[in-house]
Amino acid sequence: MMKKFFHVEDIGNLNKAIKDAKEVKANRYAYQNLGKNKTLLMIFFNNSLRTRLSTQKAAMNLGMNVIVLDVNAGAWKLETERGVIMDGDKSEHLLEAIPVMSCYCDIIAVRSFAGLENREFDYAETIVNQFVKYSGKPVVAMETATVHPLQAFADLITIEEHKQTARPKVVLTWAPHCRALPQAVPNSFAEWMNAADVDFVITHPEGYELDPRFVGEARVEYDQRKALEGADFVYAKNWSCPGVKNLSDYGRILSKDMSWTIDAEHMSWTNNGRFMHCLPVRRGLIVTDDVIEGERSLVIPEAANREISAQVVLKRVLEALK
Amino acid sequence: MMKKFFHVEDIGNLNKAIKDAKEVKANRYAYQNLGKNKTLLMIFFNNSLRTRLSTQKAAMNLGMNVIVLDVNAGAWKLETERGVIMDGDKSEHLLEAIPVMSCYCDIIAVRSFAGLENREFDYAETIVNQFVKYSGKPVVAMETATVHPLQAFADLITIEEHKQTARPKVVLTWAPHCRALPQAVPNSFAEWMNAADVDFVITHPEGYELDPRFVGEARVEYDQRKALEGADFVYAKNWSCPGVKNLSDYGRILSKDMSWTIDAEHMSWTNNGRFMHCLPVRRGLIVTDDVIEGERSLVIPEAANREISAQVVLKRVLEALK
Amino acid sequence: MMKKFFHVEDIGNLNKAIKDAKEVKANRYAYQNLGKNKTLLMIFFNNSLRTRLSTQKAAMNLGMNVIVLDVNAGAWKLETERGVIMDGDKSEHLLEAIPVMSCYCDIIAVRSFAGLENREFDYAETIVNQFVKYSGKPVVAMETATVHPLQAFADLITIEEHKQTARPKVVLTWAPHCRALPQAVPNSFAEWMNAADVDFVITHPEGYELDPRFVGEARVEYDQRKALEGADFVYAKNWSCPGVKNLSDYGRILSKDMSWTIDAEHMSWTNNGRFMHCLPVRRGLIVTDDVIEGERSLVIPEAANREISAQVVLKRVLEALK
Repeated sequence: MMKKFFHVEDIGNLNKAIKDAKEVKANRYAYQNLGKNKTLLMIFFNNSLRTRLSTQKAAMNLGMNVIVLDVNAGAWKLETERGVIMDGDKSEHLLEAIPVMSCYCDIIAVRSFAGLENREFDYAETIVNQFVKYSGKPVVAMETATVHPLQAFADLITIEEHKQTARPKVVLTWAPHCRALPQAVPNSFAEWMNAADVDFVITHPEGYELDPRFVGEARVEYDQRKALEGADFVYAKNWSCPGVKNLSDYGRILSKDMSWTIDAEHMSWTNNGRFMHCLPVRRGLIVTDDVIEGERSLVIPEAANREISAQVVLKRVLEALK
Repeated sequence: MMKKFFHVEDIGNLNKAIKDAKEVKANRYAYQNLGKNKTLLMIFFNNSLRTRLSTQKAAMNLGMNVIVLDVNAGAWKLETERGVIMDGDKSEHLLEAIPVMSCYCDIIAVRSFAGLENREFDYAETIVNQFVKYSGKPVVAMETATVHPLQAFADLITIEEHKQTARPKVVLTWAPHCRALPQAVPNSFAEWMNAADVDFVITHPEGYELDPRFVGEARVEYDQRKALEGADFVYAKNWSCPGVKNLSDYGRILSKDMSWTIDAEHMSWTNNGRFMHCLPVRRGLIVTDDVIEGERSLVIPEAANREISAQVVLKRVLEALK
Repeated sequence: MMKKFFHVEDIGNLNKAIKDAKEVKANRYAYQNLGKNKTLLMIFFNNSLRTRLSTQKAAMNLGMNVIVLDVNAGAWKLETERGVIMDGDKSEHLLEAIPVMSCYCDIIAVRSFAGLENREFDYAETIVNQFVKYSGKPVVAMETATVHPLQAFADLITIEEHKQTARPKVVLTWAPHCRALPQAVPNSFAEWMNAADVDFVITHPEGYELDPRFVGEARVEYDQRKALEGADFVYAKNWSCPGVKNLSDYGRILSKDMSWTIDAEHMSWTNNGRFMHCLPVRRGLIVTDDVIEGERSLVIPEAANREISAQVVLKRVLEALK
C-alpha cells in the first residue's frame, strides 16, 4: 500500500522495483486502465523542467489526467499558524488550501525546495509534511527540502542498465558551483545507493558532510582522488553546507575549489568510469565539456529514465488506490 | 437549450438540477461520450485555485479536452472602441480576439472580476457580455463582475445534502475583511437562495445593501444576532459597498467591525447551525479558528461540490450542443 | 518522411496538401489512432494566443497528448558556447537542455521570434536550428525568426476556399505599425504564394525589400495603388526593415506612412477583393474598422484554418513516425 513516496523504503524491495522499471520501459502504454479517470495534481512551488515534463509524461502513459498548478510562492502565501488575525499578505490558511486541492485529484505530487535559511524548518520537511497530514491523498515528492527520490530512482535504474560487474563502485563527488544549492539530490542518492547492491563512497571537502541519516554506513573519503580510484560510476553534484558540523554554516558556500571539477584527468583515475549528473549542470564548474559530451557520459539516459522512475512510482500508487 | 450560465434561471428547474447533481456525484464518469472531442476553453483574467481545478476536473470527468488560457490583464489589453487608431498599449481588438478564441473550442468559460471602480461598467457585465455577444459559443461564468453561479449552485447542493428540515433557515451574513472584495458571491448566493425552498435572511451593517435585483424578496435584517437566531446554515462572506444607497461609496470598505466576525458565541445563537464560506477565507476576520475547524463547518464539502456544480452545468451545455 | 516543417517544400506537393486540408476539415476526429500515445511538446520562447490554441486543438483532434512549456527567455537562459565556465546567469547548456526535452515527447513545436538586433543571428535561425540538430525529434515551427509556415499554409487554404477564379491575383501589402515587427509572416506568405498557383505581387515602401530567398520571382511594385488594382485578395501586414538594402537598418521602422493603411478607398481599387491579415491587427494603422469588419474580410476564417493547417502538418509528421 504505497501512500507516499519520499524515501527508498517507500518503494519496498529494490530488486522488484528495478524489475518493474524494466517492464514499464518495455511497455509504457500497457497499464492505461490503471490511470483511467484518475487525476494527478502536480503542484510546483519552484521551477521545473525535467521533473515537470517527465512526471506529466509518465502519468499520461498510465492514462491519467494531469493538472499542473504553478504556485508563485510570492503571490500565494499560506498562513500556517492558528489564532492569527489574517489581515496581512497571507490570503489563505493551509488548513483549508490543502484539503481543497486534494478534493479534485487522486494523487498529489509536490515540489518545494529548501529555503536554506533555517535548517530545522527544512529538515523537518515542514511544507510537504503538511500535504501528507492534511490532504488525505497519496503524496509524491518531486524534490522537497531534503529529498529528490524520483531522481535517485532514475539514477539507480541507469546504473543497473550500464553496470559491467555485479557490484560496481559508485562514487558521489561534490563539485564546485557559483550558487548555494540544496542537498536534496545528494541526500537521496546516498540513501538509495546505501540500499542498493553497490560499493558506495562519498567524497567532498571538509565541512560538506551530509546528514547522517542519509550517509548511513557509506564510506566517506575527503581525498577525491583516492575516492575516484577504480570507480565504475562517478556521480558529480554540488551542494551547499548541510550544517552538520557547524549549524551556522547551513546553506553557505564553503569552497569553490576548482580542483574538484571533473575533467578527463579525474576520469582517468577511475575504472573507465561512467559520468553521471542529474542536470541542469554548469559546465566548467561541475564538469568539463569533453567529459559531459564524451561517450562515457550518462546524463541523457539518466534524464530519460526520469519518465520510467515516475511511471513505476505512479503505477504503484494507483495500484494501492484500488 | 443551455447556451449560457450566469443566473439561477439559466439552470432551469432547481429541483431537477439538484437531482442531476446527486446523479452526477454518484456516477462522475458515466457521461464521457457527451464530452468526447469537445473542447472547453477556460479563460482567466484573474487568478483562480478552486474554480480552475474544479472546473477542469469536471470537464475531464465528462471526457472533454481542456485548454487553459491565463490572460495577464496587464500584458494583453484589448481595445473595445471603434474608430480608434490603435497605436497605444492595446495590441488587439476584442472584435477579433473573441471570435478567434471561440474558433478553437466548443464551450468558453470566463473569469473576470469586478474592477470596483465604475459600478455601471461592472454591473453591466461589460467584459463577459462581449464574450456572449461575439463568441458564438456557450459561455459559462467562472465568477464575473457581479455573479459566481458555480459557487452558489455548489452551496445549494451542500445545503440540500446537510439540511435536517424541509425548509431550513439560511442566513447570509456580512463579515469584516482587510481588502475591498467584489459582490459576486453574495449576489449569486442571494439569487439562488431566493429561488430555493429555504427561509432566507440577509444581514449586514447599514450601507452594505446588495443590489435589489439579487436581494429580491429576501428579508434584510441589520441586527446580526436577530438574523442568526434559529439559523440552520450560516453563510459568512465579506463584500465591499455595492453602492446601492450611495453610488460614490461603490467598492469602498465602510466597516471593519470585528463584532461581525463569526465565533462560537455567534454560532450559539443558531439552531446548531452549520458554518459555510466559499473560501479562501481570512481567519480571525471572517471566522475564528474553532468555528471553521469545528465539526459543524461545511467549507470543505462546499469546495468538493464545486466539481459537481461545474459538471452538471457543463453536462447541460454539452447536451444542448447535440 | 516529414521530419521538420519550416518551409513550403517541407509539405511536399501543394495540391495534395490542400486536398488533405479539406479532408481533415471535414473529418477532424477521424485520425485519432495516429496520435494515440504520442506526445507533442509545445515550447514557447514568446507569447502566443492563436498559435497556442490552434496547435493544441489540432494535436488533440489527432488524439495526441500535449505538454505546453512556457519558457520565459529572461529566466531560463541557455549557454550555447563550448569551453565556457558557466558561472553567470546561464544555468543550463543547450547541448543538455534540448536532448532532455526531446526525451519526453515524439514531436517538438517551437516558437522563437527574431530579436531584430542581429540579422545574421536571426536569418541563420540560430535557435530553432539547434532544436533540429540536437533533439533527434521532428521539429515544427510555430513562428521562428524568419518564418511562420503554419500561418502561410492556413492563408493558402483560406484563399483556395474563397477564390472565384482559377488563378487569383494576391497582393501582399506592407502597412504602417507603431512597433518594429519581425518579417516571419511576410517571408512565409511570399514563399507559399510563389509556390501556389496565383498571380502574386508584393508592395511596400522603398527600403522594406524582403529577403530575396523569400521574394523569389514575385513581382515587386512600389506603387501600392498599381499593385492593388484588380487584386482578388489583399494580404496586409506590417514588417520592420529586413536589412536587405542597408544592413544597418535591420529591424528599424523606416516609415509610418498612413497612406498605406487599407481603407475602403484602397479596397475600391481591387477586383472586389477579400481582405486578409494574420492577426493580431492594430486597427487604424493596418486597416480601418469598416474594412476588417466588412463582409469581404477573411480574418476570422484565416484564424479558424490555423487549426486545419496545424492538423495536416502534425498528421504528416505522425505518419512519418510510424
